Amino acid sequence: TSIFSMMLGWDLTVGELSRSNRFQSNHDISGVIGFSGALRGSIVIGINQDVAFAAAEAFFGGKPTEIDAEVLDMVGELSNMIGGNAKERMTTTGVTLGLPMVISGKGHRISFDPVAQVVLIPFETPQGPLTVEVAIRPPDK
Amino acid sequence: TSIFSMMLGWDLTVGELSRSNRFQSNHDISGVIGFSGALRGSIVIGINQDVAFAAAEAFFGGKPTEIDAEVLDMVGELSNMIGGNAKERMTTTGVTLGLPMVISGKGHRISFDPVAQVVLIPFETPQGPLTVEVAIRPPDK
Repeated sequence: TSIFSMMLGWDLTVGELSRSNRFQSNHDISGVIGFSGALRGSIVIGINQDVAFAAAEAFFGGKPTEIDAEVLDMVGELSNMIGGNAKERMTTTGVTLGLPMVISGKGHRISFDPVAQVVLIPFETPQGPLTVEVAIRPPDK
Repeated sequence: TSIFSMMLGWDLTVGELSRSNRFQSNHDISGVIGFSGALRGSIVIGINQDVAFAAAEAFFGGKPTEIDAEVLDMVGELSNMIGGNAKERMTTTGVTLGLPMVISGKGHRISFDPVAQVVLIPFETPQGPLTVEVAIRPPDK
């Protein structure tokens, strides 16, 4: 969460974690970064358009009126930083990060591999909610 | 493409490859599998709803009326197989596959990292078009 404070000057509060498998998130914009190697999974940052525009304004100064390249880059960069931060905190070694991707489209849904365990972390920003989902496939026995 | 023939009994014809960086694909359903390690990137299988439903019918026997768990699983499994196949053909060693994800939502767009080079491979199936995109970040110098 220091990433949001650093990048956007936003203080975030964390809500209650929940777990799910067969989870489908529903967002306007999703930043995705996958990881593989010793652990396989994905981290998804889900935001709605209002929060994304406010974040772009906090970061670039001007408020966007559509999901443009700046908004996409910002969400991609946030995903990259959150992935890097998560990797540093992992006690497992041998995990490598993938390339971030940004998905846009009102109400798109993301489904993870059925074997993945998904932890949903809700955040509240000064501009509205934001979620981080971590989907991990348990190591093969 | 033997994957489609194997899984669905479909013979595919390949169209002309095109390249892009700053590419945004636009699909109803996307299957995504990332890879990292010696190379970082993602493979995206993009299909529209009609083709996805026809594929589910070819695979499970019954035609779905909505994007249900069977459709999602089928697209995820296709992604997994295409990822595994791509990995086998890579001349680079030390690449590991991530966990497949399926994105649904009419006309959602996927943007890759701006540094990624994207190759778009269009296929024609007996039921309509299908695209495979491969986004790779060139190794750091």
